[in-house]
Amino acid sequence: MGKNFSDFFLSSECMIRMASGWFYLSCLLLGSLGSMCILFTIYWMQYWRGGFAWNGSIYMFNWHPVLMVAGMVVFYGGASLVYRLPQSWVGPKLPWKLLHAALHLMAFILTVVGLVAVFTFHNHGKIANLYSLHSWLGITAVFLFACQWCLGFAVFLLPWASMWLRSLLKPIHVFFGAAILSLSIASVISGINEKLFFSLKNTTRPYNSLPSEAVFANSTGMLVVAFGLLVLYILLASSWKRPAPGILTDRQPLLHDGE
Amino acid sequence: MGKNFSDFFLSSECMIRMASGWFYLSCLLLGSLGSMCILFTIYWMQYWRGGFAWNGSIYMFNWHPVLMVAGMVVFYGGASLVYRLPQSWVGPKLPWKLLHAALHLMAFILTVVGLVAVFTFHNHGKIANLYSLHSWLGITAVFLFACQWCLGFAVFLLPWASMWLRSLLKPIHVFFGAAILSLSIASVISGINEKLFFSLKNTTRPYNSLPSEAVFANSTGMLVVAFGLLVLYILLASSWKRPAPGILTDRQPLLHDGE
Repeated sequence: MGKNFSDFFLSSECMIRMASGWFYLSCLLLGSLGSMCILFTIYWMQYWRGGFAWNGSIYMFNWHPVLMVAGMVVFYGGASLVYRLPQSWVGPKLPWKLLHAALHLMAFILTVVGLVAVFTFHNHGKIANLYSLHSWLGITAVFLFACQWCLGFAVFLLPWASMWLRSLLKPIHVFFGAAILSLSIASVISGINEKLFFSLKNTTRPYNSLPSEAVFANSTGMLVVAFGLLVLYILLASSWKRPAPGILTDRQPLLHDGE
Repeated sequence: MGKNFSDFFLSSECMIRMASGWFYLSCLLLGSLGSMCILFTIYWMQYWRGGFAWNGSIYMFNWHPVLMVAGMVVFYGGASLVYRLPQSWVGPKLPWKLLHAALHLMAFILTVVGLVAVFTFHNHGKIANLYSLHSWLGITAVFLFACQWCLGFAVFLLPWASMWLRSLLKPIHVFFGAAILSLSIASVISGINEKLFFSLKNTTRPYNSLPSEAVFANSTGMLVVAFGLLVLYILLASSWKRPAPGILTDRQPLLHDGE
């Protein structure tokens, strides 16, 4: 019995340490990519598009790309990966659930402020809302995100749902989490593309002559794609998933005694 | 021994039948969505954009959206799901590998012809190539598709690679398969968005007044997204995966004897 316990303790410790090393390396890459996505978008808006304001002008619009990249991609992506932190594999799950929900709520708030920025700019300048495919897809992603958050809160955080219902909905929750991120990335790409066609028409160096703004903003778009793919890889890579109950979590009090 | 065998036979038969029912229902939906994606794109180009030609004109460009949607999304998506067919779970794997590779090759050929259409149109009209984010992302997706096909052919179809190498590369192959489809969808969305801004400027009813062409093409984009998400769901839904060796395939001669 004692030997079994020490074997189990060693193997689970070893498993967590090995997974941890690669996981943290990926997190470092993810953090760098995510920061670059936000900083590059801010720099694009500040340096080439005149900076930021909150007054219904085009400078108010400039908050839109920054807040959507920050909210729907970077914060959303980071918040999705909470259960891939090896520390979350053992011990009570509730604090991690609260962190997952809170980070996603922050992502959602950034997103809503980003939508307010574009709608206010449009209404102020008598520009139509929600006509382009970019906006149709983007608003669908935000709507699905809201549904996903509310359903996640109701089923996985509030105590009423049975284990049966939770295990039934968990793969659907994970799939839609990844799907919403994919839709957000497609929206961001079409949004950057659209913004460059708008901003660089009637200029001495239009989009098709690839001025430095176009190269910079295209590269920002490619960074967003790289960030999104890395999030999806970490999310779907099986070795970083919380082990199924019975492998580690059922024995967690023993593990905690041993620590 | 006899009872064990009949239990195994019944349970594996039952497993395949249950999975088959849902799988074929999803396939029906997938086939309908995929056909609609291609037919809607053809109708858009035929009815609103003047139809097709192969002469360097704008009518040659019209092949580009049709062939990219058909190649990089619909055929690619269908070809990805070959191993999710319950029939492929038992029996030799080689015919399914050949089918997977052949369908992807067809998808790749459609894609290349779609690229020839747009490059020829651009060169004929002295329009710059590969400047927009749509084109950067699209060409990245096609390049990754070519690498993925060649690597897949060399490692999984040719006989030299060890089982160790194959099992190491398989999850990477599956992940990049899904990632390339996601990039393709983002490219298609940004492409439709860009095309509508080009085509509907300087018209009596521009894009922002949502003329019928815009509603139709936006809806086509949303259909492409729905198709892509359904492919990714079927690809990642665990109950439709070929069982790991030892569950069904190791015993396949017994199963075949029983049939």
